[in-house]
Amino acid sequence: MTSRAELSRLSLNQRTTASWSLREAIQGCVDAGLGAIGIWREQLAEVGLDEACRTVAESGLRVSSLCRGGFFTTTDPAEARSAEASNREAIDEAAALNAATLVLVPGGLPVGDRDLEAARDRATQAIERLVPYAHERGVTLGIEPMNPIYAADRGVISTLAQALDIAERFDATDVGVVVDTFHLWWEPGVAGQLQRAGQRIVSYQICDWITPLPADTLLARGMMGDGHVDFAAFTRSVASAGYRGDVEVEIFNADIWAAPPTSVVETMSERYRQLVQPYLT
Amino acid sequence: MTSRAELSRLSLNQRTTASWSLREAIQGCVDAGLGAIGIWREQLAEVGLDEACRTVAESGLRVSSLCRGGFFTTTDPAEARSAEASNREAIDEAAALNAATLVLVPGGLPVGDRDLEAARDRATQAIERLVPYAHERGVTLGIEPMNPIYAADRGVISTLAQALDIAERFDATDVGVVVDTFHLWWEPGVAGQLQRAGQRIVSYQICDWITPLPADTLLARGMMGDGHVDFAAFTRSVASAGYRGDVEVEIFNADIWAAPPTSVVETMSERYRQLVQPYLT
Repeated sequence: MTSRAELSRLSLNQRTTASWSLREAIQGCVDAGLGAIGIWREQLAEVGLDEACRTVAESGLRVSSLCRGGFFTTTDPAEARSAEASNREAIDEAAALNAATLVLVPGGLPVGDRDLEAARDRATQAIERLVPYAHERGVTLGIEPMNPIYAADRGVISTLAQALDIAERFDATDVGVVVDTFHLWWEPGVAGQLQRAGQRIVSYQICDWITPLPADTLLARGMMGDGHVDFAAFTRSVASAGYRGDVEVEIFNADIWAAPPTSVVETMSERYRQLVQPYLT
Repeated sequence: MTSRAELSRLSLNQRTTASWSLREAIQGCVDAGLGAIGIWREQLAEVGLDEACRTVAESGLRVSSLCRGGFFTTTDPAEARSAEASNREAIDEAAALNAATLVLVPGGLPVGDRDLEAARDRATQAIERLVPYAHERGVTLGIEPMNPIYAADRGVISTLAQALDIAERFDATDVGVVVDTFHLWWEPGVAGQLQRAGQRIVSYQICDWITPLPADTLLARGMMGDGHVDFAAFTRSVASAGYRGDVEVEIFNADIWAAPPTSVVETMSERYRQLVQPYLT
């Protein structure tokens, strides 16, 4: 049996139980004894910000992240303005929810555009433009480096080292990094980069790298323990860097989405207790 | 029309035309006016080394690479000995064929083993054991860093920077690096790493990163121009590092394997002429 104290830092990212509404996910976290939830803007929009804030407050859960801002690699000025407006709205939401961070997914290469370096520069500049707005509202932006498998179509920032190169241009209270095992488990020297990150780690997301990779690579993530990630070693490095926040389980996977959400939360809690929680301190 | 001079540095890696025997592939290269061929050990074994050497010599083609050695991340001593014996045999073959390099694919994590760092160390040690044997035979080993998509099951060395950290422990004539656009196009700072590599670049392999990624990720490579790789920029960096060797087209892709090999060679020659050759000098 899993005791409640052991799960106090565990967070359910809503995408792991994609069929649940926000209210259902919050209730699921409370029922399972989790300490936090990672909220997605799409499900937030279904209930509206005010009701979401009320429900979260009543639940006693922390909001470990708001997912997600970013997607600002476009070369089209109108699209760039629209992305900025959307990111400002996301910052407002993160502030209202008192989220630990707003997760920024950089975005991929525009269609037909092969200049990866320029896309990375545009992402950096877009973050720079958002910082004053986020700072005023007390929101820490979290840059999410993404597995190179997504470099073309989703996230042009590919390593923790690269994300830190960007984050370190700003105050640590303004810009941090999102550390996700799926994205970073393979990175040479990642333990050293986690040490370097220190207080900039604003979110620790976990799921496994499984092989063979499912056919839809956007749904390629596995439950902790089902794949190749060494959660003990990775978690020790995250803890040793000083991270004391929540640990969010974020799994995009068709099989997991097809399972009853309560059993998914049960499995992830058990795996967390076995593979992650013992290495957190 | 493509002139023959333009194709003098183009090489067909046998895996691009997987249905061709070695003799057919050599004839295909000669007919198309290519300067070189990248040979696979499996097809080499079908005809035997002596006949292969004769056929290659008669053709006038250079052997841009022998594919492949490596796969030495096992923790089992008997398997490690067998891998070493197989790699020595591959070195003998590379020497006989006068191949520009023996490509070393590091291998993945052993089943159930999650210690990526230890697997990387074993790969490094295995290379170290092979160097004297390769040196005596005048063979340059080529470490192939592989896209992190393969870190678990195929190649634990994930970046050019990491491959160079290993290669630089040895003389450049003994150990170099294989630069493959599919594996490295996303690497932050890759232009700088190519400069650092300089004379250590022993093979330049090209194919494209396409999205959505085909369901079988081992067959996920695309024809140059069909995906997201900026071949002009990458090739300029390779040339600027001093590389004057052959350019090998290596595409693992079910659709390309289903097409008539002569038309595949025609298409790759045309794409090479448009997207790569102009940036080689």
